[in-house]
Amino acid sequence: MSSCRWRPGTLRKVVRRNIPILTWLPKYNLDTFVSDLIAGVTVGLTVMPQGLAYATLAGLEPQYGLYSAFMGCFVYLILGSCKDITIGPTALMALMTYQQVVGRNPDFAVLLCFLSGCVQLLMSVLHLGVLVDFISIPVTVGFTSATSVIIAVSQLKGLLGLSFTSSGFVDNVKKVYQQIGETRLGDTVLGGVCIVILLLLRKLKDVKLGPKDDKPSERQRVLMKIFWLVSTSRNALVVIVCSVLAFMFHTSEKGLPFLLTGTVRSGLPPFGLPPFSTVIGNQSYSFMDMCSELGSSIVLVPIIAVLGNVAIAKAFASGHSVNATQELLTLGLCNILGSFASSMPVTGSFSRSAVNHASGVKTPLGGLYTGVLILLALSLLTPYFYFIPKASLAAVIICAVIFMIEYEVVQPMWKSSRKDLIPTFATFLLCLMIGVEYGILVGVGINIVFLLYPSARPAIHVERKMTHSGKEYLMVTPGNSLYFPAVDFIRTNVGRVGVKQGSSQLPVIVDCRFILGADFTAAKGIAALIDDFHKRKQPIYFYNPSPEVVSVFKGANLEEFVHIRSEEELDFILQAHVEMLQEGRPDENYSMLPALELKEITTSVANGAGHYSSQRPDTVESLTDDDYTRTPLLKSSAPRAEIRKI
Amino acid sequence: MSSCRWRPGTLRKVVRRNIPILTWLPKYNLDTFVSDLIAGVTVGLTVMPQGLAYATLAGLEPQYGLYSAFMGCFVYLILGSCKDITIGPTALMALMTYQQVVGRNPDFAVLLCFLSGCVQLLMSVLHLGVLVDFISIPVTVGFTSATSVIIAVSQLKGLLGLSFTSSGFVDNVKKVYQQIGETRLGDTVLGGVCIVILLLLRKLKDVKLGPKDDKPSERQRVLMKIFWLVSTSRNALVVIVCSVLAFMFHTSEKGLPFLLTGTVRSGLPPFGLPPFSTVIGNQSYSFMDMCSELGSSIVLVPIIAVLGNVAIAKAFASGHSVNATQELLTLGLCNILGSFASSMPVTGSFSRSAVNHASGVKTPLGGLYTGVLILLALSLLTPYFYFIPKASLAAVIICAVIFMIEYEVVQPMWKSSRKDLIPTFATFLLCLMIGVEYGILVGVGINIVFLLYPSARPAIHVERKMTHSGKEYLMVTPGNSLYFPAVDFIRTNVGRVGVKQGSSQLPVIVDCRFILGADFTAAKGIAALIDDFHKRKQPIYFYNPSPEVVSVFKGANLEEFVHIRSEEELDFILQAHVEMLQEGRPDENYSMLPALELKEITTSVANGAGHYSSQRPDTVESLTDDDYTRTPLLKSSAPRAEIRKI
Repeated sequence: MSSCRWRPGTLRKVVRRNIPILTWLPKYNLDTFVSDLIAGVTVGLTVMPQGLAYATLAGLEPQYGLYSAFMGCFVYLILGSCKDITIGPTALMALMTYQQVVGRNPDFAVLLCFLSGCVQLLMSVLHLGVLVDFISIPVTVGFTSATSVIIAVSQLKGLLGLSFTSSGFVDNVKKVYQQIGETRLGDTVLGGVCIVILLLLRKLKDVKLGPKDDKPSERQRVLMKIFWLVSTSRNALVVIVCSVLAFMFHTSEKGLPFLLTGTVRSGLPPFGLPPFSTVIGNQSYSFMDMCSELGSSIVLVPIIAVLGNVAIAKAFASGHSVNATQELLTLGLCNILGSFASSMPVTGSFSRSAVNHASGVKTPLGGLYTGVLILLALSLLTPYFYFIPKASLAAVIICAVIFMIEYEVVQPMWKSSRKDLIPTFATFLLCLMIGVEYGILVGVGINIVFLLYPSARPAIHVERKMTHSGKEYLMVTPGNSLYFPAVDFIRTNVGRVGVKQGSSQLPVIVDCRFILGADFTAAKGIAALIDDFHKRKQPIYFYNPSPEVVSVFKGANLEEFVHIRSEEELDFILQAHVEMLQEGRPDENYSMLPALELKEITTSVANGAGHYSSQRPDTVESLTDDDYTRTPLLKSSAPRAEIRKI
Repeated sequence: MSSCRWRPGTLRKVVRRNIPILTWLPKYNLDTFVSDLIAGVTVGLTVMPQGLAYATLAGLEPQYGLYSAFMGCFVYLILGSCKDITIGPTALMALMTYQQVVGRNPDFAVLLCFLSGCVQLLMSVLHLGVLVDFISIPVTVGFTSATSVIIAVSQLKGLLGLSFTSSGFVDNVKKVYQQIGETRLGDTVLGGVCIVILLLLRKLKDVKLGPKDDKPSERQRVLMKIFWLVSTSRNALVVIVCSVLAFMFHTSEKGLPFLLTGTVRSGLPPFGLPPFSTVIGNQSYSFMDMCSELGSSIVLVPIIAVLGNVAIAKAFASGHSVNATQELLTLGLCNILGSFASSMPVTGSFSRSAVNHASGVKTPLGGLYTGVLILLALSLLTPYFYFIPKASLAAVIICAVIFMIEYEVVQPMWKSSRKDLIPTFATFLLCLMIGVEYGILVGVGINIVFLLYPSARPAIHVERKMTHSGKEYLMVTPGNSLYFPAVDFIRTNVGRVGVKQGSSQLPVIVDCRFILGADFTAAKGIAALIDDFHKRKQPIYFYNPSPEVVSVFKGANLEEFVHIRSEEELDFILQAHVEMLQEGRPDENYSMLPALELKEITTSVANGAGHYSSQRPDTVESLTDDDYTRTPLLKSSAPRAEIRKI
């Protein structure tokens, strides 16, 4: 606290930025409580059967799905920055875990969860959140829409009462198509009715009662409040009503016309350190053995988890910026703490976040109710969740995700920046066809290629110009900084411009206004360019380069680099060139031209007017390097009296 | 020929660009012939034992190394653009081929060669040569120096007379260290003497005879010519002299004190189509089976080959630009035609290109002599090459590569662009430690991160300014184009700048001078930024955005985007803001401010002077979209008479 930077106010600010709950909890009230409770319970009712399914997908026993579902909720409500996100088991994480668990044991999944958390925490400490800035809206839109389609299609199975396991979107479509004949009437009817009811209830909260342009009566206001409550709790209502229905049918003698979630093994998971060694069959694995078995997934799983999580956060942030470093920290803690309760790797769940959002969640506290519900479920309520009909859950999930398909963004994107449709559709199609992780990676890759292209192939603007005193020259303006990918291109094209003109002796002025930076490769390329021009005996000068660029070029021993700072200097140097042409054969004398004995020209640019003063040569030697870059000084080695006179 | 674009002249130009031999062959003379012959023969003498060694490294019979060595020479001399490069078997290609051949048969190596050629040809047709621009000088320097060290170390074995197989640089160092006790005196002495002689002969051509500052006599000139000849043919001389020595020792009764290359099986390879099916044991493989066995190496091998080849070309181009598309085409044909003669995948050989260069090659025709020598060797000369001592060859290779270690570039790089040392050393160390292919890839990756960084975290320059009429404002200048990675950063920081100032109501002007492009994500981010400012009731305007940027923003329905074109407009709009503040509460009226009823301001910028004319509102409606972007028009929705008056 002795340092001025660490006044209590600053500390409070830092703490508040890193623990978002401190910002929103003081404002918590009954309204937000009701909204959060409804959403939290609905998400809780959704995560039960999803968790069981995803655990099976990951090659684990069903209860691992529930073990993975609650810790994330508790951590995220304290540290999370996006109210809609719910952390827990997801299809993507389950599939990536499956690769590591198959033929081994659950210890590998739990250790992978722990290590993923550690990697995420490390990335957060190294502030690698910048990586997440490379997920653009096009990629987010493609990812969101594809995931919506994938999840909706994956729920068709439950909606139609089919039973099969599938390995992805394409497989799912194929199997639904193959088994469409085995559709169960009961499930389909129940699912269809649920969807219709859900869509109608969704509209209920927009119903306006009372006369137009007038305030509604007290009774109308209460009724609208009830409508809103029913509308936002529609998902939970539908699940509960269907479960009661199932319970009633279950006790009747006819048997059930639709499939139920089934038995969930109860009991809390064992809490403790993640397994740092394990035994499979007779073989025991040390920590290092397990790590080497997990291999690259120790890095890939956490990165894909973060990319997915932030893509979801961006999708729900509706234009607000997402603090990626904070999300990394939170996700890391979710995984580390989760691994203490036998969790498999977790990340933000798109489908449940959509359900959360659609249920009208107001703060991350919704996660509290979800988490508590899962703990209750594990210890007490498991028998009751047995009766949740699969079809009603499928209906809830489908109705949550179909509104996330962002077809309406295509039109403004077309009008604004057509090129952005390429990463959008590439991400969308690859997510569907090959996998969500590849879709995101390829989308980001295409975006980076677009970013890099101007660095490699900058626009080069060429103009034939004249100074005030009537000297003609070619003004060449590269439209980007000078970094290595552009060097050969600039050199070739500036050279071509110089040659193409009728008079090949026309001086070329390179306007450096957009050259904000340069590197060693560029310096060498510019040296070669200047060399090309000297061989052709054609002058080339650089107009107004920034001090940074000059220093890069100077460092690379670019002695022949002549730069000028103002129109007047340009005029002066071109005059010198013309005089040379008049005096003698330019091809004999040219090589001395860039080595003008100007010594120093001081230009005072006030209101656009400039003047020169030629000084004695000895003052030049005392100029420091710093002065060199600030003063428009043209260095000399071969004196020429004709040029010195002004 | 009917089209004007295809006049004979143009056609000749295109042909000449794609077949470099047409450019240099007419200028061929005795001088270049002698140089090329010496270099070609020396390279031929080098490639024999290298080829045999690399074939063994690839898990093939020794003669495959020679089968791979001649076709590339013939193709490259016609199409190649860099005189020093010799195409043929290399250690890197051998190692990558080994992965595909081990446990299979040579057919896989030959098919891989054919398919690599096809991929390279495809890349050439798609003009993917641009990829090669992403190899910067730092990466080239790192790669060149590391490869020099790797090759030099790999020759220690031959120099010391040790016998072992090694899998890379680290393994080589380890094994030499372990077996240093088994060093053979004969080989070491021969090798050491060869190195000393080679280094002395290398200096011989710089010897100046005759008095200083005077022309040498005729006799002295002839002597200097002989010195030059001996100096440049030193590699071939040393190899031949040592072989003769070995032959003499061989016939003596004492046995040889040093190791020889040994028997090379003679006979030309079978010419014909590459094997599109094969049989291993009882199992037959179709073309598709073979492709699926080769897997990703069908893409990786050709890409690594091209990267390596162009890195070598750049290293020897000494500042000249390398036509990567031409190199791709040439390399593709080398591989495809090579596969007709049972070649394994080939690329430019660094060590032999260094020998070629050191032997003073003048044109690609050196390859002809190399190729003919190899064909002769295969059919006739094999018995004689038996006697080449391994130590003398090691000495030749070591003396060729040690001068390629570019330590001297570090100093100018440090002075010019310190950051460039990171990819240099990363490439160098990774090439040594892990592998050349990873070294290049990581080096390029680091360079790309450097390129992308300014796109993600642009400099933002902030200045408190005043208009001519004394209105204060904040000028914020982002130092880069507005693409997706920068959006959140710019939004956060421009917002922070707006808030941080004492008077939070100070208008913010975003100077768009460096914003050369934007995308959809940027448009959405700017919309959010404007929204933030509106919520704070603080004006934000955009100064001089390019028409492209305006059109991107307009397309994304950015209605609130107000841009101004000149200082006078700025003055005008800030005046309007001040009047608003004086008239009423700004927080009540502010939301109307950006919707100024200016309708139109025409600015004629001639010699820096501008004037305004306010026009009737109805003329505005007839303005086309095009006019909108050209005319500094501020759109309106809520009329305000006070502002319209000028």
